[in-house]
Amino acid sequence: MDWTLSVDDLLEELGTERSQGYFEGTLTGIAELGKAHAGQLSFLSDHRYARYLGESEASVVLVPADKTGEPRAGQMWIHVKDPSIALATVCSRLEKRLLPTAPAGIHPTAFVDETAQVPASASIGAQAVIEAGVNLGEGVVIGAGTVVEKGARVGDHSVLLSRVTVGWNCLVGSHCLLHSGVVVGSDGFGYHSDASGHRKLPQIGMAVIEDHVEIGANSTVDRARFAETRIGEGTKIDNLVQIGHNVILGKHCILCAQSGVAGSAELGDFVVLGGQVGVIGHIQVGDGTKITGQSGVSKNTGSGMVLSGSPARDHREEMKRHAHVSRIPALQERLRRLEEKLEHLK
Amino acid sequence: MDWTLSVDDLLEELGTERSQGYFEGTLTGIAELGKAHAGQLSFLSDHRYARYLGESEASVVLVPADKTGEPRAGQMWIHVKDPSIALATVCSRLEKRLLPTAPAGIHPTAFVDETAQVPASASIGAQAVIEAGVNLGEGVVIGAGTVVEKGARVGDHSVLLSRVTVGWNCLVGSHCLLHSGVVVGSDGFGYHSDASGHRKLPQIGMAVIEDHVEIGANSTVDRARFAETRIGEGTKIDNLVQIGHNVILGKHCILCAQSGVAGSAELGDFVVLGGQVGVIGHIQVGDGTKITGQSGVSKNTGSGMVLSGSPARDHREEMKRHAHVSRIPALQERLRRLEEKLEHLK
Amino acid sequence: MDWTLSVDDLLEELGTERSQGYFEGTLTGIAELGKAHAGQLSFLSDHRYARYLGESEASVVLVPADKTGEPRAGQMWIHVKDPSIALATVCSRLEKRLLPTAPAGIHPTAFVDETAQVPASASIGAQAVIEAGVNLGEGVVIGAGTVVEKGARVGDHSVLLSRVTVGWNCLVGSHCLLHSGVVVGSDGFGYHSDASGHRKLPQIGMAVIEDHVEIGANSTVDRARFAETRIGEGTKIDNLVQIGHNVILGKHCILCAQSGVAGSAELGDFVVLGGQVGVIGHIQVGDGTKITGQSGVSKNTGSGMVLSGSPARDHREEMKRHAHVSRIPALQERLRRLEEKLEHLK
Repeated sequence: MDWTLSVDDLLEELGTERSQGYFEGTLTGIAELGKAHAGQLSFLSDHRYARYLGESEASVVLVPADKTGEPRAGQMWIHVKDPSIALATVCSRLEKRLLPTAPAGIHPTAFVDETAQVPASASIGAQAVIEAGVNLGEGVVIGAGTVVEKGARVGDHSVLLSRVTVGWNCLVGSHCLLHSGVVVGSDGFGYHSDASGHRKLPQIGMAVIEDHVEIGANSTVDRARFAETRIGEGTKIDNLVQIGHNVILGKHCILCAQSGVAGSAELGDFVVLGGQVGVIGHIQVGDGTKITGQSGVSKNTGSGMVLSGSPARDHREEMKRHAHVSRIPALQERLRRLEEKLEHLK
Repeated sequence: MDWTLSVDDLLEELGTERSQGYFEGTLTGIAELGKAHAGQLSFLSDHRYARYLGESEASVVLVPADKTGEPRAGQMWIHVKDPSIALATVCSRLEKRLLPTAPAGIHPTAFVDETAQVPASASIGAQAVIEAGVNLGEGVVIGAGTVVEKGARVGDHSVLLSRVTVGWNCLVGSHCLLHSGVVVGSDGFGYHSDASGHRKLPQIGMAVIEDHVEIGANSTVDRARFAETRIGEGTKIDNLVQIGHNVILGKHCILCAQSGVAGSAELGDFVVLGGQVGVIGHIQVGDGTKITGQSGVSKNTGSGMVLSGSPARDHREEMKRHAHVSRIPALQERLRRLEEKLEHLK
Repeated sequence: MDWTLSVDDLLEELGTERSQGYFEGTLTGIAELGKAHAGQLSFLSDHRYARYLGESEASVVLVPADKTGEPRAGQMWIHVKDPSIALATVCSRLEKRLLPTAPAGIHPTAFVDETAQVPASASIGAQAVIEAGVNLGEGVVIGAGTVVEKGARVGDHSVLLSRVTVGWNCLVGSHCLLHSGVVVGSDGFGYHSDASGHRKLPQIGMAVIEDHVEIGANSTVDRARFAETRIGEGTKIDNLVQIGHNVILGKHCILCAQSGVAGSAELGDFVVLGGQVGVIGHIQVGDGTKITGQSGVSKNTGSGMVLSGSPARDHREEMKRHAHVSRIPALQERLRRLEEKLEHLK
């Protein structure tokens, strides 16, 4: 990943911020303080990491506006309001240069059904498949090998990267980003079971992805049995996450990698699931509730809570339970002493 | 997802069942009682939900044969033996209309090796790849971008949706349904390890999927080291499930999303794994045993059991253990009082 | 999977080892002792399984050099130093016959950008996509439907099986094996969040896969925010594993199926993660440390440890904690008796 950035360009990008020290040359990389080499840009996101600053080989460091002290010789500090956001600004500029751009038009190896509606501004990648009746919005990007099945719709400026599947009749909103390997609209997992086996229940509903949703690599979103599975606006889903049928996710939720939400569960807005969390089916999780990694939510929960454990409980209670178990040997010893004393008393 | 269904068609589909009330118009959707709008069909699957019935805006509701009372004005009740099954019957009819049908023949963008056996009744989707020596049964559907590797066989009327991989020499039975992103026949995870690293053990066995198996999106089934990994007839596997090498799954098992079965484990018939369950390698799980979500099965287990926890134990015992931990503070308090009393006695 | 192997060829393959008994015919399969039929090869990897040997129908059995006793009539024993390694040797020979070979050259249905560097020795499969500026090494195999995005590089003799994605600008070393559905270089999961929602942080770093790495089906490796995510040489990753952004895995690690490592965590060399293990972000795990299945590592850990549980602790301590919980009912009973006695004393 080869790029260069001059200090002048950097200062211009960040506005007229205060700087200390001087670095003559061009930047060729970004790294954390402890890992940066000469010629690289770094940042002090938190005063707790200030101890790394003194020894950092970084040539330029974004530091908080109120940072005191002096850079070491050959190092330059640029004072900014929020170094992490300033770095994101720089990265956004670099991204414009680095990120492959998808040219408008249909790649000669793609297959686009004649009944699909594909605006001239859309980009259809190599080996992609756009089936009958599909409707793509302005500026939509369809990556290499991606399949948009019959009757599905994708809103303006959404990006489906390589090897994504959007199932028949499903809806993806505007400004969404679906990573490689995502499957939207697989069948829900529902059967009528008896002693002879499991008879499949038809899954004819949709999966609806609202606007500004991001879905990570190889994550799966099932279609509903008859109505819809819905991912709320602005919700961000990490890799290898499972969303069952008829699930409703609120707006601006965060679902970390390998978490799963079982069928018909409903999450409010701004719910956060840590990695490998499981949410059982048919329950509701209130707005703003956070579930720590590997926990299993097994019943309805209110808003604004922090839950841990499997089954998940109030996080502080769960921590106390761990502490209580640690105390069992001491209890046992106190009990033994009491028994001894009582023996002597007889 | 636009469809309409007249009440006459609905009554005909369900046979000559009893109805109450009247709805003039056509149905345009299906929803749960609490979410249904006018013009939609709903159902009362369980008398526990009867409280939602009075306020439901659904125009037509499938109710149990013994349901008493009266529908509200403008609502129609149709009495059926089992509303859930009746709904499935209706959905099956709609599915015939909605589900994209795959036309027999080979899509012009597909690649089919000249040595592959593809009957005229089979449907090969866009950008699909059928390698040398592959044998497909009658009516097989191969979705867009799906790859069937050298020498693999797929039985009659099986459907491999978009972007599936069936590895070389593997077998998929008849009437199977493999969802998008499924991988059958990846190498088992086996190495000879020493201080210099890990030397790969050849994985030359097969993965065999028996008839009537369904495998969910992005699930993976490893091939065996030298013999076979086998998924028993009628077993249903949800999304993002991992089946290790040499695993034997019995008939009619249910594996919920994100569960995993490690190498050489054997599950009996009708075993149920909840979501995110793990089964350790080289153990046996008896017929009909059910494992609750997020549990970890670490040793052989008998038939007909219900297990919970990690490591998994009898479910009631695991529940008791949780209750015992809850009691530790009370035990501590009783102990403190005893110590106090004993101090006074001295 | 049809193959035959004569006993003469087998003896030649294994060198001049000692044998007992005689089998006239050709071998047509390999199976474990308890499952082998006549005509099949089996092996006694461990004296613990010797009880299966007497009843095994296997026609030829690889046994340890020091195995005493006699084969049953019609069975042949071949004495070898290590039966498991000897079997791997045989399987390697069979693999050469069975494993499909990828012919050098570009499949007519593949798309290769004119700016990509593809040596004549490389094999590009059907429907594959090689984007602009890609650089492939000698003997590289690109499977059917695999996408190598702009500017990515793949080292000599690496094999990317069907339907793999290597993201833009990412690096895959030499002699790597990436299974079907693998995604290398998906965006890291990072946002600036406030009450209005989550603003995406650009993810412009790389994912770097060092030499001799194997990555299992449908596993995902995120690119770094600005520097690199790195998988160390010789590390082996199973199916459905998640590697977050900026993660550093050491050399020769083993990550079992469905494990996940969150952003910026660092694992040393020879670390082993069991199935479904989670490692929280921004922590370090020391060389050679082993984490048992389903555990959750939540803080820095030293080298050479064995950890269990969620949160993970020293394995023996975790086992003791389970035992302590089992003792609570007995403690409760002892406490009750003490209370009774004390009542009487009053």
